Amino acid sequence: MRIYDIIAKKRDGYELTDEEIAFFVRELTKENIKDYQATALLMAIYIRGMSDREMITLTKEMAASGDTLSLSELGITADKHSTGGVGDKTTLIVAPIVASLGINVAKMSGRGLGHTGGTVDKLESIEGFRVSLSADEFISQVKSIGIAVVGQTGQLAPADKIIYSLRDATATVGSVPLIASSIMSKKLAAGSETIVLDVKYGSGAFMKTTADAETLSRKMVDIGKAAGRKMAAVISDMGTPLGKCIGNSLEVKEAIEVLKGNGSEDLKEVCLTLAANIVSLSLGTDTAAAREMAEKALANGSAYEKFKELILSQGGNVSQIESPDKLPKASTVYKVLAPESGYIAEMQAEIIGSASVILGAGRLTKEDSIDYAAGIILHKKTGDKVTAGEAIAELHTNDDSKIKDAERLFLSALSFSNKKPEKPPLIYKVIK
Amino acid sequence: MRIYDIIAKKRDGYELTDEEIAFFVRELTKENIKDYQATALLMAIYIRGMSDREMITLTKEMAASGDTLSLSELGITADKHSTGGVGDKTTLIVAPIVASLGINVAKMSGRGLGHTGGTVDKLESIEGFRVSLSADEFISQVKSIGIAVVGQTGQLAPADKIIYSLRDATATVGSVPLIASSIMSKKLAAGSETIVLDVKYGSGAFMKTTADAETLSRKMVDIGKAAGRKMAAVISDMGTPLGKCIGNSLEVKEAIEVLKGNGSEDLKEVCLTLAANIVSLSLGTDTAAAREMAEKALANGSAYEKFKELILSQGGNVSQIESPDKLPKASTVYKVLAPESGYIAEMQAEIIGSASVILGAGRLTKEDSIDYAAGIILHKKTGDKVTAGEAIAELHTNDDSKIKDAERLFLSALSFSNKKPEKPPLIYKVIK
Repeated sequence: MRIYDIIAKKRDGYELTDEEIAFFVRELTKENIKDYQATALLMAIYIRGMSDREMITLTKEMAASGDTLSLSELGITADKHSTGGVGDKTTLIVAPIVASLGINVAKMSGRGLGHTGGTVDKLESIEGFRVSLSADEFISQVKSIGIAVVGQTGQLAPADKIIYSLRDATATVGSVPLIASSIMSKKLAAGSETIVLDVKYGSGAFMKTTADAETLSRKMVDIGKAAGRKMAAVISDMGTPLGKCIGNSLEVKEAIEVLKGNGSEDLKEVCLTLAANIVSLSLGTDTAAAREMAEKALANGSAYEKFKELILSQGGNVSQIESPDKLPKASTVYKVLAPESGYIAEMQAEIIGSASVILGAGRLTKEDSIDYAAGIILHKKTGDKVTAGEAIAELHTNDDSKIKDAERLFLSALSFSNKKPEKPPLIYKVIK
Repeated sequence: MRIYDIIAKKRDGYELTDEEIAFFVRELTKENIKDYQATALLMAIYIRGMSDREMITLTKEMAASGDTLSLSELGITADKHSTGGVGDKTTLIVAPIVASLGINVAKMSGRGLGHTGGTVDKLESIEGFRVSLSADEFISQVKSIGIAVVGQTGQLAPADKIIYSLRDATATVGSVPLIASSIMSKKLAAGSETIVLDVKYGSGAFMKTTADAETLSRKMVDIGKAAGRKMAAVISDMGTPLGKCIGNSLEVKEAIEVLKGNGSEDLKEVCLTLAANIVSLSLGTDTAAAREMAEKALANGSAYEKFKELILSQGGNVSQIESPDKLPKASTVYKVLAPESGYIAEMQAEIIGSASVILGAGRLTKEDSIDYAAGIILHKKTGDKVTAGEAIAELHTNDDSKIKDAERLFLSALSFSNKKPEKPPLIYKVIK
């Protein structure tokens, strides 16, 4: 078998066989296929597409290209994955909820890059919290308390890592089969039986429309089912940031509020929808009953207790959870005032995310360091009425020199209107 | 400007601007664009195509990416180029014909690779012949005798070299705009005013059909005209080898026969058509008059004398030209006998070329060495009647062990029929 012939076949729009796809993934991982051959094939896949069979095979082969976690000894296991959002701290809330209901969560999370944050960074804003556990520590913690959240452990789906970095440099990121196989290969390798995806749509998401988000969701759910997993995808709005806080320690604080039964409605709603779907798939209860169980876990404090167990078990300073004022705090808090009166018609998530990066909350390149205290608190959100001069947000940073740039960018994300705007649905659909 | 955006634009089927194409060629030559980005773009170009404007700009930019020869001080200059054939020794005949008529030929030729031979290898079968001249020697030889034939001098179209090697590994060779720009960028950089292309069609050629050959010819002629050159493309048959000899010293012998007014009709016809077009474009005479001039140059020995001048000037042993028996001769000459009686219906050029490579006449990789004496003499060709057991060809080699493999391959190129077969036209069309 020759990569040349595989490239030529896809170039001409033909379906690749399972053997050809396996050959590509295996030889690329072994570095027997040149990067410049891989990118030619990826461009041909981008333009010509892939059948569902090709996509499922590609995903399975990528999942099998490195370590795969076997979680079968843990019993019931569940994982969630978000396609990336601004202010998206749902993992910090959903994982403790479902763990408190007896579902094991052995979760690997990522770091933030660009305008979206990452769960690992958020947890690291808690003093002492260790995101690097050995595979043994990881599994044994899940065994003892039913939850662990770490950065990647082992070499999961190395083929995806190679392919992703090449796509990123060659304008082949936005291909549904390539996105679906990239996300799902890591989820399959990570081993959980139930996988619930949070697929974002809107200006701050990769998928701008509900139609695109639905297509991607359908493909990922199909891949997971073909691999024998219990699957659901929640399609949720990312036109505007989720919740009120953006930035690492600020988001931990907000998550604690929700875990204590308070917090913004939109954030709580997304978390409960995700949790209900995980519980329903994992325990076989219907979604309404599962939702009630999740609500109860928040109301009776068991999710909050599970969160504290998680923090304690991974070396974090639990007193920072009990007194969130002890979490990293910015030296400067700057109030952004409404430039005009009216309804906030738009608050574009991607731009708000970028403003928080300027303040120090995120990274533009992998090498950038993070200011855990930096970020934004939104006093007003899309649909709210404001009066000119009223504070609509707080900018938090330890670097004063960034305030003006961040404010300018923040304001550019807003538009105002005389009429109360129609908001897109927070939860557009759940695909199963 | 970013290569990422250029890739994305072509990926989506849009036309690139002149500035974008110039950026790609310039930055690729400077190695500021990664190979894996270039191949993604080349695949997008392969699938999405290029407008004539894009293709002309790409060619001009590639031509300008390295040294460009200025031949203006030489007066009338002409170049020919063949897309590659088996038994194609036309340069050895056409160049002396037109040089003997006062048209300067400053010609750079290639080496053989795969089933097709190269002029430089053929000339090197002559003892002492130097194919590497400095740029100064090259020009001053043309000034003094009107002809020089060398391997590439200087860094002509380095962008084409990079792009070609990437296309070769990524199944993006067979794209008309990429083929046309590759060939024409080198021809434009080589500086001649008149360029006549010999575009082959048929089983032994890259373009299998007359329609494909015509499309490519039209594009190349248009590119040359857009760059201010006088252009013609002769579309000629390469379903069967050209002339009777394949292999380096064997082809030199056959060229000498034609230069002396003898030789096979098909070879002579292609050479006279090419020469007539060069003469007509360069001197402004009509093609019929130009053809007569070329015929006369063969008949009166002036082309032959010019060839000897060329060999002498570049250090070659002219006694080998005067007595071609002194050219390298193979230790073994093996007769291939007709396996059946009938008409030869087919003699596939590509396979015959590959059989000659087995005998030692060519290279499979750039590093292989050549046996100058090796090759094939065809006693019979497509359309000839043969009797079973009659000799139809001679295999020449210095490596006996190769004979059986070469014979098996040679015979596989043949098919026989009871009726005289219809031959495809030798000269299909001349595109101007």
